[in-house]
Amino acid sequence: MELNKTVSEDLQKIRDQKPLLHHITNMVVMNETANATLCLGALPVMAHADDEVEEMVAYAGALVLNIGTLYPQLIKSMIRAGRQANDLGVPVILDPVGVGATKLRTDSAKEILRELSVDIVRGNAAEVSILGGFEGEIKGVESMGGSGDLINVSKEFAKIHDCTVAITGEVDIVSDQSKTLKVSNGDEMLSKITGTGCMATTIIGGFASVQEDKSLAAAGALAMFGLAGELAAADTGNRPGSFHVALYDRISMIQPGDLKDNAKIEIVS
Amino acid sequence: MELNKTVSEDLQKIRDQKPLLHHITNMVVMNETANATLCLGALPVMAHADDEVEEMVAYAGALVLNIGTLYPQLIKSMIRAGRQANDLGVPVILDPVGVGATKLRTDSAKEILRELSVDIVRGNAAEVSILGGFEGEIKGVESMGGSGDLINVSKEFAKIHDCTVAITGEVDIVSDQSKTLKVSNGDEMLSKITGTGCMATTIIGGFASVQEDKSLAAAGALAMFGLAGELAAADTGNRPGSFHVALYDRISMIQPGDLKDNAKIEIVS
Amino acid sequence: MELNKTVSEDLQKIRDQKPLLHHITNMVVMNETANATLCLGALPVMAHADDEVEEMVAYAGALVLNIGTLYPQLIKSMIRAGRQANDLGVPVILDPVGVGATKLRTDSAKEILRELSVDIVRGNAAEVSILGGFEGEIKGVESMGGSGDLINVSKEFAKIHDCTVAITGEVDIVSDQSKTLKVSNGDEMLSKITGTGCMATTIIGGFASVQEDKSLAAAGALAMFGLAGELAAADTGNRPGSFHVALYDRISMIQPGDLKDNAKIEIVS
Repeated sequence: MELNKTVSEDLQKIRDQKPLLHHITNMVVMNETANATLCLGALPVMAHADDEVEEMVAYAGALVLNIGTLYPQLIKSMIRAGRQANDLGVPVILDPVGVGATKLRTDSAKEILRELSVDIVRGNAAEVSILGGFEGEIKGVESMGGSGDLINVSKEFAKIHDCTVAITGEVDIVSDQSKTLKVSNGDEMLSKITGTGCMATTIIGGFASVQEDKSLAAAGALAMFGLAGELAAADTGNRPGSFHVALYDRISMIQPGDLKDNAKIEIVS
Repeated sequence: MELNKTVSEDLQKIRDQKPLLHHITNMVVMNETANATLCLGALPVMAHADDEVEEMVAYAGALVLNIGTLYPQLIKSMIRAGRQANDLGVPVILDPVGVGATKLRTDSAKEILRELSVDIVRGNAAEVSILGGFEGEIKGVESMGGSGDLINVSKEFAKIHDCTVAITGEVDIVSDQSKTLKVSNGDEMLSKITGTGCMATTIIGGFASVQEDKSLAAAGALAMFGLAGELAAADTGNRPGSFHVALYDRISMIQPGDLKDNAKIEIVS
Repeated sequence: MELNKTVSEDLQKIRDQKPLLHHITNMVVMNETANATLCLGALPVMAHADDEVEEMVAYAGALVLNIGTLYPQLIKSMIRAGRQANDLGVPVILDPVGVGATKLRTDSAKEILRELSVDIVRGNAAEVSILGGFEGEIKGVESMGGSGDLINVSKEFAKIHDCTVAITGEVDIVSDQSKTLKVSNGDEMLSKITGTGCMATTIIGGFASVQEDKSLAAAGALAMFGLAGELAAADTGNRPGSFHVALYDRISMIQPGDLKDNAKIEIVS
């Protein structure tokens, strides 16, 4: 329960401090992640012009990089913004959407990891595995439900890339180099609408802006987002349009006390 | 009822096979068409970088091209993706948004039709007429309600461009070179929110990925989307925000049996 | 009540004439402003390719420029479209999103104001103050609630830039060079979702397309949008996802008579 107390205090800090989350993100989810940011209690800005990203990131509590609809110039802006974030101590969160599907995505995500000090990577099992170089080792990750292999993959990934990694799926696994956490909040409906992975990354950005321990930040964010998904699904059943609307409602309605009582976070390693 | 049986089986195939629909589309509807894809039971990807479209289309069940917010580089990516799709036998669907309004749109749509083998074009009466070169012949198409002239336009278009064409409006007309179908599902509320034409094109992509007969694919998709519109309008009345939400719910809730019982497709020529 | 009668007649004109609102706008709100346009009763088009903006603006009742996700080429397209709009007498509305946050935003907004005859600028107190050169003079504008200083800022801004200006916030202030209006409709929930400022600008574009007196156009639009916010908040309470949906419903449901009865517009100078 000590973990739950900490993450609930982090939520209160976000609501009090209203950090700016600077997104350089994909065109599919710009509106949705901006609204998720507001529901969390933070402030969104979407700015990707090469000429302004350094100035914008200076106001930010976190920088969220998402390669969902990447193109070469966008990656340049991400690296420019990320270097400034590194210089200023602003946490950098990377969502390597679709890594492994194309060479451009894989190369771009690797370039970002090489050029920047990334604090947290959030991806699904396939994306993290590919980016960690484990393709051959974990077959059928989607059906594994977050058991043994994913814990090892996450620990190895954290070591190789010197960062915190969050693998999201039926169960979420978060590792830094010293500990591994499991988060069991969530609902299957989160996989029935687009952009929920990107929203999770945004909310991780919010928690990372107020919490030095980045694996705890990621776990707290995933517990909160998963809890919002549970509550929204209870409201709307198997209707994806209605669920999408209720998801925003529920993110905004969750109070620190709710998170303290209902976060399902445990240390597994 | 033989047609209805076929299109309901096609819907079941989509739900079973979960084809990837690769979109190179406009910035207004990226989220909305991705969500429509998920509600249909398929998987969306939005990828338009010149360097990755050939790889991405190799995974796809269909390639959806939509020129709603076009710019010259995007058209190049569409043609590159489309050539690969043609080589691999992946169906190509074109939505020529706003053709006729500007020279760039008209020239770009014509270039796509010239450079690629397009399987299905989906547009409104004005767009299809202009792209078929019939401007002078069918005046006031918007008020015609899909009667005689549109059938002739669609047949001629299919012949000229060697493809299937779907003209959507109060009644939808679908022609290939051997037959013409009329689809009477739909609701006026579909014209009260943006992106429903684009969503229809997306759903045509889904049906085209499992059905060789492309006019049947287009008719089945339009019947299903129109039925979802009818059901959503019955849920929400004349409230466009609520209708938009219910439309996603209803796309996802329609089962093959519902489509078999309620599709209004007939052969008219 | 003479003002209310005029703005209600303007709403009727929009519903009758269905003007096309040409947007060159940001990627976050393209769908949302297109849907707000349809709910208002006008027709949206989003077109930003340099090669087509002159043709497109020729069909338009108003040109809406929004720099929310600007990049240098987009500003060039805005200026090209705006010159054509000026030549054709199409009203130009500018939303200087984030001016002051980065040099690119400030320089771009100033370039637009210098190169074009802008009819109406719509921004929050900070944006308008910075663009008017008043940074040092009005501290803490966000907490001022639209009292004295903002009226002076708006009057000075209108004089300097020879245009109408609308400062939106808890209370909205609209000035041209001859009069200043205060609009008191609105609800705090409008600040809980993204894009409501951009939607307000879109609706100003709609009213500007039917009303020569641009401060009256802006005031009517802000009264209508604020009233929609009040009604939507009454429907949904403190739930931002549900409020977003209800906001579209309410924009579309407001009739001229409702606006006549409930607009809170007064002349303050």
